[in-house]
Amino acid sequence: MSSNNLVDPHAVGIDWCRAPAAAVDLQAREEAITRQGNLTKPPGALGRLEDIAIQLAALQRREKPAVDRVWISVFAADHGIAAADVSAFPQAVTAQMIANMAAGGAAISVLARRIGAEIELIDLGTVAPVAPHPAIRDARIAPSTANLAEEPAMSAEQLARALAEGAAAVARARADGAELFIAGEMGIGNTTAATALAAGLLGSAAADLVGPGTGLDQAGIARKQALIDAALTRHADQLSDPAAALACLGGFEIAAMAGAYISCAQQGVPMLIDGFISSAAALVASRRCPGAADWMLLAHASAEPGHRAMVDAIGLRPLLDLGMRLGEGSGAAAAVPLLRVACQLHAEMATFDEAGVAEKQSSC
Amino acid sequence: MSSNNLVDPHAVGIDWCRAPAAAVDLQAREEAITRQGNLTKPPGALGRLEDIAIQLAALQRREKPAVDRVWISVFAADHGIAAADVSAFPQAVTAQMIANMAAGGAAISVLARRIGAEIELIDLGTVAPVAPHPAIRDARIAPSTANLAEEPAMSAEQLARALAEGAAAVARARADGAELFIAGEMGIGNTTAATALAAGLLGSAAADLVGPGTGLDQAGIARKQALIDAALTRHADQLSDPAAALACLGGFEIAAMAGAYISCAQQGVPMLIDGFISSAAALVASRRCPGAADWMLLAHASAEPGHRAMVDAIGLRPLLDLGMRLGEGSGAAAAVPLLRVACQLHAEMATFDEAGVAEKQSSC
Repeated sequence: MSSNNLVDPHAVGIDWCRAPAAAVDLQAREEAITRQGNLTKPPGALGRLEDIAIQLAALQRREKPAVDRVWISVFAADHGIAAADVSAFPQAVTAQMIANMAAGGAAISVLARRIGAEIELIDLGTVAPVAPHPAIRDARIAPSTANLAEEPAMSAEQLARALAEGAAAVARARADGAELFIAGEMGIGNTTAATALAAGLLGSAAADLVGPGTGLDQAGIARKQALIDAALTRHADQLSDPAAALACLGGFEIAAMAGAYISCAQQGVPMLIDGFISSAAALVASRRCPGAADWMLLAHASAEPGHRAMVDAIGLRPLLDLGMRLGEGSGAAAAVPLLRVACQLHAEMATFDEAGVAEKQSSC
Repeated sequence: MSSNNLVDPHAVGIDWCRAPAAAVDLQAREEAITRQGNLTKPPGALGRLEDIAIQLAALQRREKPAVDRVWISVFAADHGIAAADVSAFPQAVTAQMIANMAAGGAAISVLARRIGAEIELIDLGTVAPVAPHPAIRDARIAPSTANLAEEPAMSAEQLARALAEGAAAVARARADGAELFIAGEMGIGNTTAATALAAGLLGSAAADLVGPGTGLDQAGIARKQALIDAALTRHADQLSDPAAALACLGGFEIAAMAGAYISCAQQGVPMLIDGFISSAAALVASRRCPGAADWMLLAHASAEPGHRAMVDAIGLRPLLDLGMRLGEGSGAAAAVPLLRVACQLHAEMATFDEAGVAEKQSSC
């Protein structure tokens, strides 16, 4: 099956992805800016912590935002491209890590406990079996995507299902009263898929974006790069449409994340984007849903070299730069305390009037 | 009084500052490195969060460190140089902000609550009166330092007292079981003092380090730069000795912070350095006390342009880079959740064996 045989995804239930993002609240934004200017500190002295509070005020439609209730959906799936030996880890690790997350031993499990977030694990399809567990949602689409270097990674029907799974996660988050949505992922081989997808959407060569993923050596990186370039050539006629590019080059978990991000923007739920894989999904969302980027904050700069180009294209700046490259939503969860610090400073600091502190001299 | 008349500070009770830092625990460090390698993630995928856990293990002498108990001492003092109009804020703000901190309305007050830290405020001398308050320790040395552009900022006796106040704060922190020490500061004009001190110790011209502080305009920055260069010339014969440079160019709160940092290193208390003013004090500590830098973590990169040169000289890398430039210890307090995240991931993640997850393939 070549890309030319791909069913038009617009015909099979993903038209909802085209609806624009909700409008942000410019009045709340102005109120938050005014408040920041009255707090007992030099103007701007809290740097990006001020920006965070102001952006969240605009998104949450209130002068004093909060991120007490955080929701994490971790989407997991296997990738046909893994057969081409593009990961330092065997494919069985996808299912093993889902079990580790459910048992509470993965990084995202520890972080979710630390920040008091609700966390759910969504199995979109793995090659190895996943034992049933109350914390794991069975949403299996197929054991794995197809090999994106040889054919489209997924059919239009599979794409629609994966996108809808993302939107369903956001619906659950909203029902729980989430003030912030985080998507995480797990999928051996998904750095390759995300790199191919980002390169396709950005019109880049693989060499501009490719990196070691979970730990490839130089030969592995070269192999990965050649596979991605081949895939970009094979699917070249599909890359002008973000949804078609996603179907050809993405993964079930990447598509679910893109669907979740689009839904967050449409439903007005602020989202904190994690790292490399998440940002590829966010790039799809920003291309597909006008205004989606307004609803995004970027948690961190991934150590994966292509990340910068992706987030620059969306218009996002990372909050943290700690050389993390784990995925799972771990960088986003690690950044949540910063958002809380920003909100609490904004809400609880005294104003100059309240504290009887003299303001900046007008001569300066 | 010229610099040449400065009493030799070595003779008046600061010899304790020369004692070396405590040794770090290399065995605990190795155990922490081994543990990081066994956790269910690609090697190095948590980036600097791994480094933090490993460094804290070495400092706290245990495989699994923790920073649950955090102590914040905020040192406040006025500066004679403020008479030269080097700040965007009037000098009365030092005392006003001490009262604001005591009342819970300052940024550091909000942050201390957020992270559950013990916080104490230490008044080392202000021009405006400070009303007694249970949260404020009276340790007044003088209403202000002398004008460092015209004479040494403090006498040797004053220097010794300020350094001892810092050590006393660390003794209180240790008695409270602190696992991490943070020093904060407040003092209108102290960016000028810190810049002069750093320039003196680094052999730099003022132009290499000077910046807007709390919000000077270009004319203000030029005035500040000229004052600092004049001070460097005036005190040139004192700058080869860190303690003498501190007496000539520092402030009471900067000297107290330097004393606290030296004491932390000697007593084996990990410290989290805040921003520009703190780093000038940390530079003194690292020059005066061999091995002191081993006990330091740097919370953030200040927006003040000279910060980079100071922390490079100490050998510190910032954890956060959020454009903050407030002082008070605010950047350090904001970074505490990251240290906790690092410790909790290190302690609570499952190992590959525990989770039954396959490790990285040996071929990669």
